[in-house]
Amino acid sequence: MNTKFFSNWVGRKSDVYDPLITVAERVEQFNLLKAADAARALAALPQEQAVAILDRPELHHAAAIVGRMPVEIAGRLLNAASNDRVADILHEMEGDRRTLVLGTLDADARLAVQTLMGYPPKTAGSIMTTEFVSVPSGWTVAETLDHVRRVERSRETVYAIYVLDPDSQALVGLVTLRRLITGEPDAPILSVAHKSAPVTVDPMTGQEDVARLISKHDLLALPVVDDAHRVLGIVTVDDVIDTMVAETTEDVHRFGGMEALGKPYMKISFAGMIRKRGGWLAALFLGEMLTATAMQHFETELEKAIVLTLFIPLIMSSGGNSGSQATSLIIRGLALGEVRLRDWWRVLLREIPTGLTLGAILGVIGIARIVAWQWLGFYDYGPHWMLVALTVGVALTGIVTFGSATGSMLPFLLQRIGFDPASASAPFVATLVDVTGLVIYFSVAIVILHGTLL
Amino acid sequence: MNTKFFSNWVGRKSDVYDPLITVAERVEQFNLLKAADAARALAALPQEQAVAILDRPELHHAAAIVGRMPVEIAGRLLNAASNDRVADILHEMEGDRRTLVLGTLDADARLAVQTLMGYPPKTAGSIMTTEFVSVPSGWTVAETLDHVRRVERSRETVYAIYVLDPDSQALVGLVTLRRLITGEPDAPILSVAHKSAPVTVDPMTGQEDVARLISKHDLLALPVVDDAHRVLGIVTVDDVIDTMVAETTEDVHRFGGMEALGKPYMKISFAGMIRKRGGWLAALFLGEMLTATAMQHFETELEKAIVLTLFIPLIMSSGGNSGSQATSLIIRGLALGEVRLRDWWRVLLREIPTGLTLGAILGVIGIARIVAWQWLGFYDYGPHWMLVALTVGVALTGIVTFGSATGSMLPFLLQRIGFDPASASAPFVATLVDVTGLVIYFSVAIVILHGTLL
Repeated sequence: MNTKFFSNWVGRKSDVYDPLITVAERVEQFNLLKAADAARALAALPQEQAVAILDRPELHHAAAIVGRMPVEIAGRLLNAASNDRVADILHEMEGDRRTLVLGTLDADARLAVQTLMGYPPKTAGSIMTTEFVSVPSGWTVAETLDHVRRVERSRETVYAIYVLDPDSQALVGLVTLRRLITGEPDAPILSVAHKSAPVTVDPMTGQEDVARLISKHDLLALPVVDDAHRVLGIVTVDDVIDTMVAETTEDVHRFGGMEALGKPYMKISFAGMIRKRGGWLAALFLGEMLTATAMQHFETELEKAIVLTLFIPLIMSSGGNSGSQATSLIIRGLALGEVRLRDWWRVLLREIPTGLTLGAILGVIGIARIVAWQWLGFYDYGPHWMLVALTVGVALTGIVTFGSATGSMLPFLLQRIGFDPASASAPFVATLVDVTGLVIYFSVAIVILHGTLL
Repeated sequence: MNTKFFSNWVGRKSDVYDPLITVAERVEQFNLLKAADAARALAALPQEQAVAILDRPELHHAAAIVGRMPVEIAGRLLNAASNDRVADILHEMEGDRRTLVLGTLDADARLAVQTLMGYPPKTAGSIMTTEFVSVPSGWTVAETLDHVRRVERSRETVYAIYVLDPDSQALVGLVTLRRLITGEPDAPILSVAHKSAPVTVDPMTGQEDVARLISKHDLLALPVVDDAHRVLGIVTVDDVIDTMVAETTEDVHRFGGMEALGKPYMKISFAGMIRKRGGWLAALFLGEMLTATAMQHFETELEKAIVLTLFIPLIMSSGGNSGSQATSLIIRGLALGEVRLRDWWRVLLREIPTGLTLGAILGVIGIARIVAWQWLGFYDYGPHWMLVALTVGVALTGIVTFGSATGSMLPFLLQRIGFDPASASAPFVATLVDVTGLVIYFSVAIVILHGTLL
């Protein structure tokens, strides 16, 4: 942001464009302060600024900060903050402190916040705000404009005006500010409302589906309604962006083979880090131990043809890599709705020829490597080196095909049994494929090298 | 969306809330049609509806559809569509057809579209729209309201009103619709403008940074300005969401060890699929061939102690898995700004103890496994089985530490040399760690089993 430009251009500080730093930048400054210092600084700021800062989810340790404020100051700030933000902050507090702070809220705010806190995490109810503009369906454009001007003076962003039935309080229409401005003053408010029925969700809708709907319909806010179609709150587009960023982080962590960290990397405790990573690492290790069992099963073949061991890492990693590719494609395909659960067989019909082709490519490279090393004298693979090369080539084709098929099917299976398909991490797929890959390798070897090495 | 509720509640079709399907749902229908059929269907719809559908980026084959329309109809629709959408559609067209269609645009629209098309992909200039509401700084609130009412009737969403200096056309302020409504009619427009200077970007700013700014400052739109602070266009929040979704897909594909697919999974051609996956798969294969070289180097040890081969997959996969975890954490940490390039040594200081601890945990499990199998008689690891167990335990500790360190450092290195840190895919890290892991394993074995097996 070119603040120099403005201070030069505008000149005097009394001009409107006093280049104050933005709220987001203040939040970054506050994030560097210890909670106690931040609490003091926040309490010293003008009310409006302090609330704007507290309202931002990017303020990491808001709960700790509020916890260190005198209770009356905490109440003063939280009463003016958004209810959904207050609910999030209170969630992170200890029980006693939380009750104390809840007590400082106005009756209306307290009820709203407690309702919001009652919803399970990651649902529409847990991320919605209860503060939105609504008018009865009998009003005119002029009455609505007047209402927005006077009563809604405190609300910074008005996403849309929700028109409710005066008796049932059900949502009957949605009016954008733009249409409100261009409407005839005496026209009924419903006459400038959106033509199609507003898109809504119920409070138990998962936040990922909420984000998808907002993105799909290009909405600025999505109303959350109950069974009687009464508006409980709205989920706003900025909350959705924050949600999407957090979701992506979780997905990447899980795809990397661990539990989502849930906290910034530099802020998680050592014990927390070990917990989040050790679990999956140990589980995958236990699964991978089957490779030792498989190798023990083939120990006779191993002793007879040690040359086969040279290519074990190569073959296994190819299986794991092709599986990792396939699983990442299907995880995203499912997430974007490009692929649905019932498309699994169509995916399989694509993955098998793809795996065969990719495996054949690697097989040719593998054979070429062995042939080259033998001819150039870098290594002697023994008198049956050509059969060894063939074994490696065929095994590669087989394992890459199997890896692609397994990697692509795993997210479907996980979703079918109720898990998040994104749990199909790259290491998980690799572990699955490793064991079968070894079996494929040695089985191919037994066939091709029968009578010679084996 | 509860359309049944509305049709029952509202009753007559002439009511405003005729539950027409939403634009997004129509777009999904059109996505299932072949281009020629879609072109006919689109041309038959009322202008407003057709433009609304064409305007959506979710309409996948818009370029093909426009290509199959009579040129005059294409011009009619594109002249009414958003300039940024027209630029995107034209980008995907063939040169001749593109020139033809460009010719049907109004002079102003054509200039705007050509300017937009001139920007490199994935920059603010390439995703911005040139259609925004601006007023001179000398106007009053009433004049601005009037302007929005009359001249801007066609614009569906007004994100904000940009106040420009009448001589230099530079951006001097930003007014939200909400503040416009609540302003006194005779007040100068600047008196209801936002207090801090508007956040802006230049057209060459990367789209990821644009998305980050919009998310950080909770904006609905971000003005794109030139050196003289004149507004060239705005990037809107819905474009940002689309951008973020596409970015995540690319990142997941790359983390899975392949090039970003760039098309929906079910729509990419077979050859395209092979190209996108085969490249990385072959490259990783070539890198992994070093493991064969490493094993050949240790062939003496291998022949003397075949029992060591039983645990090669186990040890290598543990290195790869811990590396995958570490790299996913740092990729996200860098993307979110939680970790910066200069923090690499702090990350290393965290990863080394973490790797040692995690490796020790796996080492203990590994030793337990060997001890258990030996005692329970499932397998005989030979007279020196305790030393073998110790070798495996120490090697696991070493390789998990190395894997965590390597996995965490790789994204930093990639970013330092100018690549996207997200290219540090799980398979890439695993390949790096495999080779060194083997060296660690056999080196540890040589030390511990010296004089006994080796």
